[in-house]
Amino acid sequence: MAYHPGRHFLQVPGPTNIPDRILKAIAAPVLDHRGPEFTKLGREVLDRIKPVFKTRQPVMIFPASGTGGWESALVNTLSPGDTVMTFNTGQFAVLWEKMAKQLGLNVHTLTTDWRRGPSPESIEAALAEDKSHQIKAILLVHNETSNGVMSRVAEIRKAIDRAKHPALLMVDTISSLGSADFRFDEWGVDVAVGGSQKGLMLPAGLAFVAVSEKALKASKTAKLPRAFWDWEPMLANSTGGNFPYTPACNLFFGLKEALNLIDEEGLENIFIRHSRHAEATRRAVQAWGLETVCAEPLEYSQSVTAVFTPEGHSADGLRKVILERFNMALGAGLGKLADKVFRIGHLGDFNDLMLAGTLGGVEMGLSLSNIPHKSGGIVAALDHLSAQAGLRAAA
Amino acid sequence: MAYHPGRHFLQVPGPTNIPDRILKAIAAPVLDHRGPEFTKLGREVLDRIKPVFKTRQPVMIFPASGTGGWESALVNTLSPGDTVMTFNTGQFAVLWEKMAKQLGLNVHTLTTDWRRGPSPESIEAALAEDKSHQIKAILLVHNETSNGVMSRVAEIRKAIDRAKHPALLMVDTISSLGSADFRFDEWGVDVAVGGSQKGLMLPAGLAFVAVSEKALKASKTAKLPRAFWDWEPMLANSTGGNFPYTPACNLFFGLKEALNLIDEEGLENIFIRHSRHAEATRRAVQAWGLETVCAEPLEYSQSVTAVFTPEGHSADGLRKVILERFNMALGAGLGKLADKVFRIGHLGDFNDLMLAGTLGGVEMGLSLSNIPHKSGGIVAALDHLSAQAGLRAAA
Amino acid sequence: MAYHPGRHFLQVPGPTNIPDRILKAIAAPVLDHRGPEFTKLGREVLDRIKPVFKTRQPVMIFPASGTGGWESALVNTLSPGDTVMTFNTGQFAVLWEKMAKQLGLNVHTLTTDWRRGPSPESIEAALAEDKSHQIKAILLVHNETSNGVMSRVAEIRKAIDRAKHPALLMVDTISSLGSADFRFDEWGVDVAVGGSQKGLMLPAGLAFVAVSEKALKASKTAKLPRAFWDWEPMLANSTGGNFPYTPACNLFFGLKEALNLIDEEGLENIFIRHSRHAEATRRAVQAWGLETVCAEPLEYSQSVTAVFTPEGHSADGLRKVILERFNMALGAGLGKLADKVFRIGHLGDFNDLMLAGTLGGVEMGLSLSNIPHKSGGIVAALDHLSAQAGLRAAA
Amino acid sequence: MAYHPGRHFLQVPGPTNIPDRILKAIAAPVLDHRGPEFTKLGREVLDRIKPVFKTRQPVMIFPASGTGGWESALVNTLSPGDTVMTFNTGQFAVLWEKMAKQLGLNVHTLTTDWRRGPSPESIEAALAEDKSHQIKAILLVHNETSNGVMSRVAEIRKAIDRAKHPALLMVDTISSLGSADFRFDEWGVDVAVGGSQKGLMLPAGLAFVAVSEKALKASKTAKLPRAFWDWEPMLANSTGGNFPYTPACNLFFGLKEALNLIDEEGLENIFIRHSRHAEATRRAVQAWGLETVCAEPLEYSQSVTAVFTPEGHSADGLRKVILERFNMALGAGLGKLADKVFRIGHLGDFNDLMLAGTLGGVEMGLSLSNIPHKSGGIVAALDHLSAQAGLRAAA
Repeated sequence: MAYHPGRHFLQVPGPTNIPDRILKAIAAPVLDHRGPEFTKLGREVLDRIKPVFKTRQPVMIFPASGTGGWESALVNTLSPGDTVMTFNTGQFAVLWEKMAKQLGLNVHTLTTDWRRGPSPESIEAALAEDKSHQIKAILLVHNETSNGVMSRVAEIRKAIDRAKHPALLMVDTISSLGSADFRFDEWGVDVAVGGSQKGLMLPAGLAFVAVSEKALKASKTAKLPRAFWDWEPMLANSTGGNFPYTPACNLFFGLKEALNLIDEEGLENIFIRHSRHAEATRRAVQAWGLETVCAEPLEYSQSVTAVFTPEGHSADGLRKVILERFNMALGAGLGKLADKVFRIGHLGDFNDLMLAGTLGGVEMGLSLSNIPHKSGGIVAALDHLSAQAGLRAAA
Repeated sequence: MAYHPGRHFLQVPGPTNIPDRILKAIAAPVLDHRGPEFTKLGREVLDRIKPVFKTRQPVMIFPASGTGGWESALVNTLSPGDTVMTFNTGQFAVLWEKMAKQLGLNVHTLTTDWRRGPSPESIEAALAEDKSHQIKAILLVHNETSNGVMSRVAEIRKAIDRAKHPALLMVDTISSLGSADFRFDEWGVDVAVGGSQKGLMLPAGLAFVAVSEKALKASKTAKLPRAFWDWEPMLANSTGGNFPYTPACNLFFGLKEALNLIDEEGLENIFIRHSRHAEATRRAVQAWGLETVCAEPLEYSQSVTAVFTPEGHSADGLRKVILERFNMALGAGLGKLADKVFRIGHLGDFNDLMLAGTLGGVEMGLSLSNIPHKSGGIVAALDHLSAQAGLRAAA
Repeated sequence: MAYHPGRHFLQVPGPTNIPDRILKAIAAPVLDHRGPEFTKLGREVLDRIKPVFKTRQPVMIFPASGTGGWESALVNTLSPGDTVMTFNTGQFAVLWEKMAKQLGLNVHTLTTDWRRGPSPESIEAALAEDKSHQIKAILLVHNETSNGVMSRVAEIRKAIDRAKHPALLMVDTISSLGSADFRFDEWGVDVAVGGSQKGLMLPAGLAFVAVSEKALKASKTAKLPRAFWDWEPMLANSTGGNFPYTPACNLFFGLKEALNLIDEEGLENIFIRHSRHAEATRRAVQAWGLETVCAEPLEYSQSVTAVFTPEGHSADGLRKVILERFNMALGAGLGKLADKVFRIGHLGDFNDLMLAGTLGGVEMGLSLSNIPHKSGGIVAALDHLSAQAGLRAAA
Repeated sequence: MAYHPGRHFLQVPGPTNIPDRILKAIAAPVLDHRGPEFTKLGREVLDRIKPVFKTRQPVMIFPASGTGGWESALVNTLSPGDTVMTFNTGQFAVLWEKMAKQLGLNVHTLTTDWRRGPSPESIEAALAEDKSHQIKAILLVHNETSNGVMSRVAEIRKAIDRAKHPALLMVDTISSLGSADFRFDEWGVDVAVGGSQKGLMLPAGLAFVAVSEKALKASKTAKLPRAFWDWEPMLANSTGGNFPYTPACNLFFGLKEALNLIDEEGLENIFIRHSRHAEATRRAVQAWGLETVCAEPLEYSQSVTAVFTPEGHSADGLRKVILERFNMALGAGLGKLADKVFRIGHLGDFNDLMLAGTLGGVEMGLSLSNIPHKSGGIVAALDHLSAQAGLRAAA
């Protein structure tokens, strides 16, 4: 086996690079999960995760990946045959829709060209038409990882309110949590689903589920069968820092450290950092003469930028060259974007020089793959980064 | 905070001590889970886990704790209203039964005094009575972690065969896998559920599900709704080392190393080691003049020994003294054994001198708690350990 | 290669078990040793190491093992042809004497039977005879690792004072620092030499040298050539947290964490712990009917117990059985004690149950090696440990 | 404390970034350094380090930093009052000279302007003049870390031979070993001194000393006093994998892994990689319109590039901006180059994208510091890197 010197550049839009401090926290000897030291930790992280969602409501932690959080959201609040509003706006939105169908729900789907998110106007119109309130929930993806489009949740909330519709607003915040601003309480979200392996800088293995009072009320009468994903014992145990079954103890050690890192940098500073990196990346893309998938500036993602390769040039071929020559993994195009798009993840534990290395790798990969482009995208990015060096949130 | 010098003794019956080599493997920088290096790893561990179950059938790996494996077993093979045979023989058997009810199944329960496992005879009798084959599955716990009783799976298989009953045999092998002999193929098990945090010496976060041809066939017609736990996409992806959603990548690194450790020591040697330690522990218990919960020598557990404190003496008080004075965690009595029983885990990454330390801690704890006992249990244990020092499986 | 399950028992009298927290601290990405973050760390550890020596004088840190500290002590304070008092009382005392000769010094040697340390009386007598003050320094080993004898430094200081002799008192505290009380200032020590791999719970690689005003004054005129070991640039740089050449950066990360652990447990509590463990070990030895090398109760070591095997029984054979069967390393007899003695290290990051495991291993090893002994030494040890469980220093 | 997200860029010319595999190897529980497992490791690394020096002669490993290796070279081969040839060609050459004086040696110094190494011609001339062979050794620095000048050792060897002079050729290979070609046997080097914290990718703490037959012969009669640095016991013990005093055990674990990494990548491939990175760096420097310190293309260093800031612009100010804004440490100008020069380390565990990040950081730092320069140095570097992507040594 040949050793690849230096750090691997993991620039897929999650899982993300795990900081050394978190890796070390995870690699701690395990504890009795029913003993006093662990239950104290349990209470601490259950409490400290709330501000990351900007909520005072309960946030549950399941030993599962984020997809499990989707299932938990559905089976606790809905009954067989209920209708949910879903969106054909990207690969993950489509997969959540598929899950809803598998669990026996009906779907009402709104569609875009996958280059923009659901428009508040179309949601409002669809809800206004649903006079009998058949639609029980709206399954929105905050940051669509497959195309770098970020939904306008606050505006969508207002659209729902304008339609005076009682549907629960469920939001997948898996690839935005801890990278882009998300305001559970202020935006009136009812269920939010997060995962550990993106902005939280942890390995996959924890699914977070935040729940509003309204969602909790819905869970009292919802009829879909549930056991592992059941909120009731999870919430009942959580006050003591306990769990109805074995939690992913070592990831809890890591979660505590992740929350420490977030506190040290400051959540708002983290969002500014992601925003700077996203803008610098887009400037490089533009300077190269390439096009981002996201066509709506109001919906540019802060955590991932999906880029079209020119017609006739394989994005997967480019990714392969970059992986083999420069030891960097980029995200593939998914679903109908397969081989047409490569995705640059710029989220999690990341900084300016790592982005410079990342964009340098893309630029060299474009050259080696003979993909038509203008040189110097990296300089455009550096210009933006240095112009905004040291930008911080107002204290 | 006061530092507790030296190693914590984690002697609950799981989670177990994680070897340094596994902790380090887990603390590796994460990889793109769709990239060539990770999918190669995926194929490798999916293949190498099979011999641990002694099967050639597929074994699936879910990013969840073992309880999720229970749910996966049920929702893939059964339909609403189906009946399953369950056992009131210990806390975990009871919890599996409870889950079955939550998912809309009927239960037919056999009961013992919690000091022995289900008898093959009673199972045979119950199945013989079920002429119309209403019972679709038997939910057996191999090693009941709550009382240290190990079910006689091979004999129970024969009892089912004698009754000529078609029910699926489902076995929870969570706290026996990798610690005690388990033979999926030879014993005709249909679904076996394992977890990562016991004999496999990993943190919690992986649920293993082995499935027979018969179980796979049942899954084609089973009607319980399923998405996250669905076998079909999991099996379809697995040939390429892929997963339908993000797997717990870092635990996969650890799993590979765990399989290396198992290969280096040898699975049969591991079983002999656990058996020696269990016997040494029982000799200490006997020498102290105390009583094990398991009353049936054929059913002594190899991985955990549950011990009654004398009437009027709190087992939880004893555990507290031992935790505070000697930095050792023992398992609590669960359910109806609460405060009457303490449990000594002697499984996973464990050796003779760690057992000597463990039993020394129990003996000192008994003294400090003024629990009537005879001194010298540890000497009885050492005598057994040294008499059998170096015992290995026949090559 | 066969995997040895569980923790290795490293019971040599140093290097000692390294706590996980220290291993992780050491495994941190390295820093520019001239940058602000590292120099801050340098100042911190140079300051915080002083209380461990109980001194306000400077303590230097060389990137070397303890033997280098011996050389540093000699070449900075002495001139070619000077005479030093040395002691034939154990292997390490003899090695220090040998070094003095190699560097061109004359030696005046006091001798014992290696079962006790230098007597204050004989030192006083020898110094009183040295009317012309030819003896420039006294090279004393505080804790003789080879036989478990601890010198009475305070009494020896008084003996020197009674003789009104100006010789520098140099003390090797390598295997006592952080395990047994050592009072640099109060005892009037002039140069003390420590190492990282014993009571400080670090890997080998740091030599500590504490120096009195008197020693510093001597260094101004001392004529032995020196460069690497020179105190002057080391002290001049230290105020800024700098070093005249590259320091062992990663061990500094570990040293900071070691000092944290020491603070958390409390230095006096650490001494009490070591004393309890030493006494428990001796009770086991006595109960087995064996004999410790140290024949003087006032000089029992707190960190290591050396034990004779009965005439005709190989100590190295015993150690080999214990290493192979029970995965425990014990110290060998050194020099003239070779094969007659085994040494049990009970120092550093160690606790009651680890000692129980250690003594259990020795007891089983004695049995397997057919060495005549009485059973139950471990019970004698446990009785002492539990009688003194939780003993702490007065607040 | 504010957390700095992402990886720190440690681009000083050593200590270098330590690969995760090495950090983990180092963080292993320590072993008895006299036990069979460690002595086996000792023999292995003592054997496997030889090819890195391209020698069949013994290489010793001292628990010390590289400066100690200098002292070992001198005290084992020379006698008080001997003369050595030294070079005023950079800071480290000057420091070695200073050490020689401190140890009682006379020096004969050749001087350059610090922008080039010693010329073979001037060495030949000086030796030819030394008819009585007063010069006993030549103290040459292979790669002068302070200015990025690499001496032409092979040509200097020929110059010595032409002068028919018997002086020992001693070479400091601290910052070249494992980064640039070094041929101990072929070049007729007599003593070579290496360190662990540069091309070997380890923390500081190991000094390597390779010795020729001629040097060993000289050591039999050399009269400088020595003990810790003495070759005789070091070599005598080494055949058994032993050491005369405690070795730096944990660094040995790391050294084994470092040798594994070197074998996996291939030593010649490592040299090609360093050469590509050095050339790419110089192209960036040239494109910025700046000047390297090294003025002799034949002597460009492969591991470090020292760059002048324009007259009137503080190099230390630039480094400070880059450290604070971009979390990258660059090397300072040393000695007479202080504040005039910044040094970019591009050695050790390093790859193309890390270099892109490094040069991106320098380019942004130049802008933020208002240092006159042309933009786009990074593009010049990327062009070179991609043109030579995948360049490997002939098999």
